[in-house]
Amino acid sequence: MTDISPNANDQADQRTIGTVAIRWHGHQLELLDQRLLPADEQWLALTEAAEVASCIRDMVVRGAPAIGISAAYGVALAARAIEEEQWREPLAEAVAILAASRPTAVNLFWALRRMEAVAEACSTLEEAREQLAKAAEAIHAEDLAANLAMADHALSVMTDEAPFSVLTHCNTGALATGGYGTALGVIRRLHETGRLQRVYADETRPWLQGSRLTAWELSREGIPVTLNADGAAAWIMARGDVRWVIVGADRITANGDVANKIGTYSLAVLARHHGIRFMVVAPSSTVDMKMASGAAIPIEEREGTEVRQVGGAVLAPQSVDVFNPVFDVTPAELIDAIVTEQGVIEQPSAETMAQVFGQP
Amino acid sequence: MTDISPNANDQADQRTIGTVAIRWHGHQLELLDQRLLPADEQWLALTEAAEVASCIRDMVVRGAPAIGISAAYGVALAARAIEEEQWREPLAEAVAILAASRPTAVNLFWALRRMEAVAEACSTLEEAREQLAKAAEAIHAEDLAANLAMADHALSVMTDEAPFSVLTHCNTGALATGGYGTALGVIRRLHETGRLQRVYADETRPWLQGSRLTAWELSREGIPVTLNADGAAAWIMARGDVRWVIVGADRITANGDVANKIGTYSLAVLARHHGIRFMVVAPSSTVDMKMASGAAIPIEEREGTEVRQVGGAVLAPQSVDVFNPVFDVTPAELIDAIVTEQGVIEQPSAETMAQVFGQP
Repeated sequence: MTDISPNANDQADQRTIGTVAIRWHGHQLELLDQRLLPADEQWLALTEAAEVASCIRDMVVRGAPAIGISAAYGVALAARAIEEEQWREPLAEAVAILAASRPTAVNLFWALRRMEAVAEACSTLEEAREQLAKAAEAIHAEDLAANLAMADHALSVMTDEAPFSVLTHCNTGALATGGYGTALGVIRRLHETGRLQRVYADETRPWLQGSRLTAWELSREGIPVTLNADGAAAWIMARGDVRWVIVGADRITANGDVANKIGTYSLAVLARHHGIRFMVVAPSSTVDMKMASGAAIPIEEREGTEVRQVGGAVLAPQSVDVFNPVFDVTPAELIDAIVTEQGVIEQPSAETMAQVFGQP
Repeated sequence: MTDISPNANDQADQRTIGTVAIRWHGHQLELLDQRLLPADEQWLALTEAAEVASCIRDMVVRGAPAIGISAAYGVALAARAIEEEQWREPLAEAVAILAASRPTAVNLFWALRRMEAVAEACSTLEEAREQLAKAAEAIHAEDLAANLAMADHALSVMTDEAPFSVLTHCNTGALATGGYGTALGVIRRLHETGRLQRVYADETRPWLQGSRLTAWELSREGIPVTLNADGAAAWIMARGDVRWVIVGADRITANGDVANKIGTYSLAVLARHHGIRFMVVAPSSTVDMKMASGAAIPIEEREGTEVRQVGGAVLAPQSVDVFNPVFDVTPAELIDAIVTEQGVIEQPSAETMAQVFGQP
């Protein structure tokens, strides 16, 4: 993997779909290194599946949809790199390496299963190379299209007197997806249609996706954003101008439970207490109808050093015990609307989910 | 103000009342510089009231009781430094400088009023010097005594099957008080009596009192502490081993509303949702019966840089708007018990507060 020049985000497409974080050139995948934002805009060029897996694990790229898209490109790169006549086994190994990168976001496994199905349908390596590249590009393009569609669906239920403010958590924008964003796509659309007063962005400890990514992404596009410590969200809700909390998802189970960035469940409880509505925005690739409820979702725990330190600064005694779950599960009963590209599910439950996604 | 050698906390008294952060030597006040913890244990020696005011404003010393004690010593130092025959006016000026240091904690104003009353009762500067030093020492000693008494009172209502876990926010320990601590004093006592399973300590963004101070203070005394991001508190509550959320207070109004570190209100809402009890522990000097409700409490907002940066690390675009309230107000109806040295007020309200503290 090599560093390449920045400036990709000076290209024209940012005017229409916002910032770009994933670029595909057929022979290589380029990822904006999100660990360095907002201080540095550095791109990494990848040509091997194992490099893509490392980038997912180390959070060069993060956000459930962006992880799925990157993994799909990783499979396409693997097919290009294979020279053996017996290509199916090394391809399966590449898929396994990618699948082991992170546990919680289901889009990763969804994308890999789709790529596997494409590979199975191919009879030659040459055909697989071509079809896998096409499939990855399709996953990427469909994700962007889903985000644009979700923004339309979401606005249809946000009938509040405009302008109003919203609160969001983590980063669900162009940086987390194939472009435009899920929750942040809805917020972009609110801004484009003159209905947005202000976005309050939780800084989102410990990884600070809100400070480093959401504040950066919204600021550079002129969308009015105010950054706050996660602990201030309840106090902001009590002040009264926030109408919706809008977040993304890493996995949605058959009963409408939602795994998302740690802190999301807290916001859902707080929103309910304040009579503020709570919306989850995620493509249907995030829906896992094979899992009955959130209780079964594997919740990744990361190193305690993420909490003990920031940017090399010592925040806590190095030996202190840390509980660092990366995700939490919000039960369906605290969610007012789940928005996918297939439409809006109000008051999600096993029944309303099955109406859209079929019986599990 | 001068830096002096560390090692004060190697003295014997830490074994009985925990860490020490305020030392008085008659001619000078020594404060442990809490901005540098846990990396450095550095003491500052102060001989002027204006220096003490700067240390309060800049958070060398923080925590409502510790601010009140430091301000009292500041008045005593001012009396020592005055050489004019007309000593009342320069003393009043020193009090005014100290009063302007921070707006929210009422203990500051309480301590200054008490010192003013002592000064008024004195007829000579020499008498004032002596009596003000004695009064400051009394405020300091009474605070420690109050903390020890509060720990006893608190345990009388914590009838849960032991051992159990608790969750706390900010730092309310020896570092925030005259010694032993308010909420952390209760937690110390739970540990001393074998009833404490574990303390979950919110890191408490933006100033990270939990990571830097509470984790440090508890770790060095062998009290089992687990540090967590503030956004993880709800998820920890959902797991089930936490029985109480225990916090301090910066001001308690006549109806039982409580101003405390930003994030406290969030915890109170979350605790109620999870059926976890919520306890506020603060000396009666924190009670402001002249203020009817929390709506009237001035809430300090500090610089946005506290949220944008940590330890010099760039976390967010430097130009991004920040909302950085330092405190929030928890309404009495979310509080199960307010503990002062005068006893426990369960289900605080204007009526139950007046029974203990008299009609406002």
